[in-house]
Amino acid sequence: MAKIADRYLGVDTWKVVENGFDRDRNRVSESIFSLGNEYMGVRAYPEEGYGGDSLVGSYFNGLFEEIEVAAHYKGIIRFLRFMVGAVDWLYARISVDGETLDLATSRFDDFRRELDFKRGKYVRSFVWQLAGGRRLRLTFERFVSMNVSNLGCQRIVFEPLNFSGRVDVRTGLDFSVVHEDQGRCFWQSVRHGREDGVTAMLGKTIRTKNRLYSGFALDVPDAVRTELVEADRFIGQDVTIRLTQGEASTFDKFVFNCAEKEPSATNDQLWSAGLRHTKAYVSASYADLERRQADYWENVWKESDIVIEGDPDNQQGIRFCIFNLYQTYHGDNPGFNIGAKGLTGEAYRGLAFWDTESYCLPFYIFNNPRAAKSLLEFRYKSLPHALERAKELDCAGAFYPIATIDGTESCDLWQHSNLQLHVGTAVAYGIRHYVGMTDDLEFLYGKGLEMLVQISRFYATRGQWGQKTGLYGYFGVMGPDEFQLMVNNNCYLNLMAKKLFEYTLEVIGRMSREAGEAFEALAGRLGLTEDEQADWRLKAEKMKIPQDPETGIYEEHDGFFDMPHLDIHSIPVTEFPLYSHWSYDRLYRYDMIKQPDVLMFLFLYSGDYPLAEKIANYEYYEPRCIHESSLSPSIHSILAAEIGKGEEAYRFFEFATRLDLDNYNRNTREGLHTTSIAAAWMNIVYGFGGMRSDGDRLVLRPTIPAQWDRYSFPISYKESKLLVEVDKHQASIKVVSGRPVDLTIYGQALSVDSSGVTVELKQLV
Amino acid sequence: MAKIADRYLGVDTWKVVENGFDRDRNRVSESIFSLGNEYMGVRAYPEEGYGGDSLVGSYFNGLFEEIEVAAHYKGIIRFLRFMVGAVDWLYARISVDGETLDLATSRFDDFRRELDFKRGKYVRSFVWQLAGGRRLRLTFERFVSMNVSNLGCQRIVFEPLNFSGRVDVRTGLDFSVVHEDQGRCFWQSVRHGREDGVTAMLGKTIRTKNRLYSGFALDVPDAVRTELVEADRFIGQDVTIRLTQGEASTFDKFVFNCAEKEPSATNDQLWSAGLRHTKAYVSASYADLERRQADYWENVWKESDIVIEGDPDNQQGIRFCIFNLYQTYHGDNPGFNIGAKGLTGEAYRGLAFWDTESYCLPFYIFNNPRAAKSLLEFRYKSLPHALERAKELDCAGAFYPIATIDGTESCDLWQHSNLQLHVGTAVAYGIRHYVGMTDDLEFLYGKGLEMLVQISRFYATRGQWGQKTGLYGYFGVMGPDEFQLMVNNNCYLNLMAKKLFEYTLEVIGRMSREAGEAFEALAGRLGLTEDEQADWRLKAEKMKIPQDPETGIYEEHDGFFDMPHLDIHSIPVTEFPLYSHWSYDRLYRYDMIKQPDVLMFLFLYSGDYPLAEKIANYEYYEPRCIHESSLSPSIHSILAAEIGKGEEAYRFFEFATRLDLDNYNRNTREGLHTTSIAAAWMNIVYGFGGMRSDGDRLVLRPTIPAQWDRYSFPISYKESKLLVEVDKHQASIKVVSGRPVDLTIYGQALSVDSSGVTVELKQLV
Repeated sequence: MAKIADRYLGVDTWKVVENGFDRDRNRVSESIFSLGNEYMGVRAYPEEGYGGDSLVGSYFNGLFEEIEVAAHYKGIIRFLRFMVGAVDWLYARISVDGETLDLATSRFDDFRRELDFKRGKYVRSFVWQLAGGRRLRLTFERFVSMNVSNLGCQRIVFEPLNFSGRVDVRTGLDFSVVHEDQGRCFWQSVRHGREDGVTAMLGKTIRTKNRLYSGFALDVPDAVRTELVEADRFIGQDVTIRLTQGEASTFDKFVFNCAEKEPSATNDQLWSAGLRHTKAYVSASYADLERRQADYWENVWKESDIVIEGDPDNQQGIRFCIFNLYQTYHGDNPGFNIGAKGLTGEAYRGLAFWDTESYCLPFYIFNNPRAAKSLLEFRYKSLPHALERAKELDCAGAFYPIATIDGTESCDLWQHSNLQLHVGTAVAYGIRHYVGMTDDLEFLYGKGLEMLVQISRFYATRGQWGQKTGLYGYFGVMGPDEFQLMVNNNCYLNLMAKKLFEYTLEVIGRMSREAGEAFEALAGRLGLTEDEQADWRLKAEKMKIPQDPETGIYEEHDGFFDMPHLDIHSIPVTEFPLYSHWSYDRLYRYDMIKQPDVLMFLFLYSGDYPLAEKIANYEYYEPRCIHESSLSPSIHSILAAEIGKGEEAYRFFEFATRLDLDNYNRNTREGLHTTSIAAAWMNIVYGFGGMRSDGDRLVLRPTIPAQWDRYSFPISYKESKLLVEVDKHQASIKVVSGRPVDLTIYGQALSVDSSGVTVELKQLV
Repeated sequence: MAKIADRYLGVDTWKVVENGFDRDRNRVSESIFSLGNEYMGVRAYPEEGYGGDSLVGSYFNGLFEEIEVAAHYKGIIRFLRFMVGAVDWLYARISVDGETLDLATSRFDDFRRELDFKRGKYVRSFVWQLAGGRRLRLTFERFVSMNVSNLGCQRIVFEPLNFSGRVDVRTGLDFSVVHEDQGRCFWQSVRHGREDGVTAMLGKTIRTKNRLYSGFALDVPDAVRTELVEADRFIGQDVTIRLTQGEASTFDKFVFNCAEKEPSATNDQLWSAGLRHTKAYVSASYADLERRQADYWENVWKESDIVIEGDPDNQQGIRFCIFNLYQTYHGDNPGFNIGAKGLTGEAYRGLAFWDTESYCLPFYIFNNPRAAKSLLEFRYKSLPHALERAKELDCAGAFYPIATIDGTESCDLWQHSNLQLHVGTAVAYGIRHYVGMTDDLEFLYGKGLEMLVQISRFYATRGQWGQKTGLYGYFGVMGPDEFQLMVNNNCYLNLMAKKLFEYTLEVIGRMSREAGEAFEALAGRLGLTEDEQADWRLKAEKMKIPQDPETGIYEEHDGFFDMPHLDIHSIPVTEFPLYSHWSYDRLYRYDMIKQPDVLMFLFLYSGDYPLAEKIANYEYYEPRCIHESSLSPSIHSILAAEIGKGEEAYRFFEFATRLDLDNYNRNTREGLHTTSIAAAWMNIVYGFGGMRSDGDRLVLRPTIPAQWDRYSFPISYKESKLLVEVDKHQASIKVVSGRPVDLTIYGQALSVDSSGVTVELKQLV
């Protein structure tokens, strides 16, 4: 694994801190210091304007624009949809006596910024060296409210150290932001103006006609002049503030943003609702809002903190991960999903992949089951799109897109959008996983089963029968391993489809017994027949799962064992990432894999496979994997821990929590690896904690890395809350709230209650 | 094979005739009545302007424009190049007393048009019904000179049947033509004007800066007024002609076109050379030029006519094919190639594919060896591009593009441009074939071997070793059968590469013995080593050619025999072509094939395979082939004839010669299937004539379809000219010119001279 840390930031277990400003790293820091509250996200770009390299990124979950793409063939998408960069609501141009502040060109010292996990706030300060030796300390604060999703707050504190005078601030709402990837602005102004102390603009995207109301109110006690400013796709105010030597003057801006995708609401309705809500904050106190924000985060840490003692780097790292998972998604807004980069950049176009169910969902299931359910409801809400997409592909049922922002397929590489079928099985796994951990039968017997049936229909029509083997499977597919572009019988996919059919049939059986009437109604509505159930049963039975009987190694797909071998260690480091350095077609003709494929199902259905098989397959596939997906190392770490390779497990874990803090992939400038952040959480809980959640009972087999003294993590499970604490010698598990729960610890069935159980750590292999 | 004739045109064995005008078929007729002389081509669009469906298509061989395409990955092309629609040099707007002629709206009768194979001329006439009952007969003639490539001639004859008066003609050169596929005009005017009786314009394409001089002179005896007209990208003259009842007034236009791709010539040079050449035709006589054109074609038919007695449909069909092969290419201009649609439309963007060597080259080898050599020289000329392209694909040697106009790859579907490797082997086969039939050792020991070495280098670096089998082959490829998108060890490609290595080594051996000094010089220049020859030898030996030992059936690629079966007869006719009706990915996961793949090499290397294997493979693959390539049926026909399936051979042949005349594929409107036209020639000579030319001696095994009384075809072979005549009972072969030749007829070695040999026809199986 050619992944090397780019250490730069200092370590603090509750903060990210940058002392001093490095222009070359500004864009990386903009990503790392990003704020979000699920509803909106904003990169840590300098709001005063910056002449250097910067991405003014302000995003709203689910808000998207589209462009038409040339499509030659049926089933290939015609519209490329992407999360569109939106209003710069922090806009604040600052000048003193005609000198304009710009960190790219101005002189300054004592620069420091920090992102505070306990307060959910980003603070930046420095001393601006003005002409004539005048020194002005500026402190910029901002937060996006976790309590009121629409609300963003900005405070700028001016403290003249050795002079008195005035500062001019042009504050406003800038809809003229350019979406960098597309090289243009997609916004037009529908309405703007100033009413009752609120300055506002209603913007609209060109093609999709998504609308965004943005309005702000100010609280500037020392203002001596305020004037309205209107320009192209911009509205704001010029404010002049009196500065007194040695005294701090504050500038508080409260911004209310409201995104609207539904065309039914009129512009007038959006405008007046927006104004009304904004006005409520004219009288708000910044301090109050700040305190409520801190309260929210205090509660998050109470619920979800992972404590690692003896390893401050990873302690900071995992808190950064948990902080960002909550910032990106916490289930307040149904219909949202998690883009690969969250709300921190344009890369991956804000699209959600199978990462959501495969990597992120476990975090939410075990920390915030309500949020987990909301994620699954995104898939239910987009079921009509999935049904439509299956038809486009000449299949029945529901085909979930490999990359989406609104439920439609938005990957313009047909080899991915048409051949990667594993999102549907991931959704089904997610339903099974969520219900298994929460007993939410109401969800299962309604939306859950409806999705399962429609997903099964897709897999029963997309698959085919091998002519020679007489076995069922999927031809012409790309599995999770994206270095095998178009293969037959990808083992992961076949296995996942087999399990899907089995689970759907199991749920049908269970619901028809336990909730017969509701089942009949659902079955009637879906036109579910006995014949199709028999068909699924047969296909599950006859599914091809190729495995070498001698070695126990599963063959990733038909013919994989004959693929030309490449010693991946022979590839010069300068050729990574291979996508950028190798001819596109060359990537796909070795036994080199990009990310776990067989190993993935050995993890997901851990309970089905004997340890010996896991060892054999790990030994075979691990040396062939180049981890050109940031999701890859954590899965390897989890399996390494299981098969007793503790050192290797830690080595794979090393970059998991600090992937972005230490810019391991050298592309954090594009945004955070939000879904990989969730893998870091899994890495600790499933990897070192040894948790498995694929069976009837939750399993724990805790270990501890040699580098750690002690660690602990909480788990929500069947309406109880557990705390797992592990030190060098023993693990103790107790119920913190809720009823006693049954667990399997080191293979032993135990009931755990609030008094807890303590067990000695065991060597696993 | 769901191919049904759309019979419309009458049958005449030396002409194509359309009596009456069908607006719905105008565009089909525009393609069928196209003219070309290799240098330029022009569709039979109405030069007077047409308000209905029409494609004003005027093309110059090799003249191209390009657009930049978004390329994400290395090895995927960045410029889409295409034959660009060029000057409408026939432009002639006609009006009488303010009434303008337009067949879409004007009243007319007695419409007839014909394309005369003996004269190489397109003639169209009708009577225009003018206001007040006036009747004006118009006859439009045009030809593009086969003697002077740059020259196009137009004659318009006005014959007022029942009145006297005047006609106004605006004649000119229109560079403002819109390239329909791209929806814009790519020309700008560099210079234009009128000098010494010549009206001319020098145009230039926007990106590629290809230049085109076009100049014309008129001969209009009854002109009463002439006036220069200049407009945007247009220059011309308004001519008023006196009409006398019952008398014919002629309007003759001589156009000299000169295309220039090299940037070195200055505009002034092009301009003055163009003027000088055009002026030469001011004094030319239309009748003289017409006569020389007829002489040229008389000679063509003397050299290349295929006579079929008892089947006027196919007699007309094959002459239409031969006529168009000569129109498209006859080797006067080195550096030209043959686009899939020749010079008759924008479809396939004027690009040349492997069709050139695999389907067209045999026609030229056996009719016009000089032209065959010129085609191979196109590949030599573009060797630097092929070397560059191989590098882009991380390989050594030369990689010839799947689709090209200038030698660079111009297919924007990576799955074709990066995975279809078989053009290089086709070029090598072409060299071998050409040299075998002509003994042109000068070519072989120079350009030929240089290409063979560079092509071999590519195939020695692109291939890989199977890990399990220890055999060499190509992974991640698309063979000729484009319904198997990305496979390993395509049997055709592996076999062709094996033969390539063997042939290259054979030529090296031969040349080093026969022309040692020249060989050393060439080997030195190419850096040819013993080691790489050993490498090629090993790879040829160890090449994987998968074959079922029990049945003798070659497996098209790894895993083909397990591909899900589809009874192709179960596909509703309404779903053809599948490319338009099926989801793109669905095409690629059956044992359904698009066109011959295994069968192709059983034909190309016919002598290597026993009849039993041909039968077994034909029986297996034929029912799986849907012929969604117009190149497909003829190869099946040839093999069917060989294995004694005479009726089936004729059934597959049926559409070959009349594919466009009867618009079998319903897309002749886009242009002619020029390369399929060559397959029709092969279908007769290789199919019914039973010729094979892959061994040391030319082989003949003539048969005759039950539907024919008699047929004959000529062959150029080793500097001799043979005539093969076949009737119901016997075949006679004689040398028409040149030395006696050794042939194998029905397996018997014979020497044939000018007195000829006659043999009884034999049942083949």
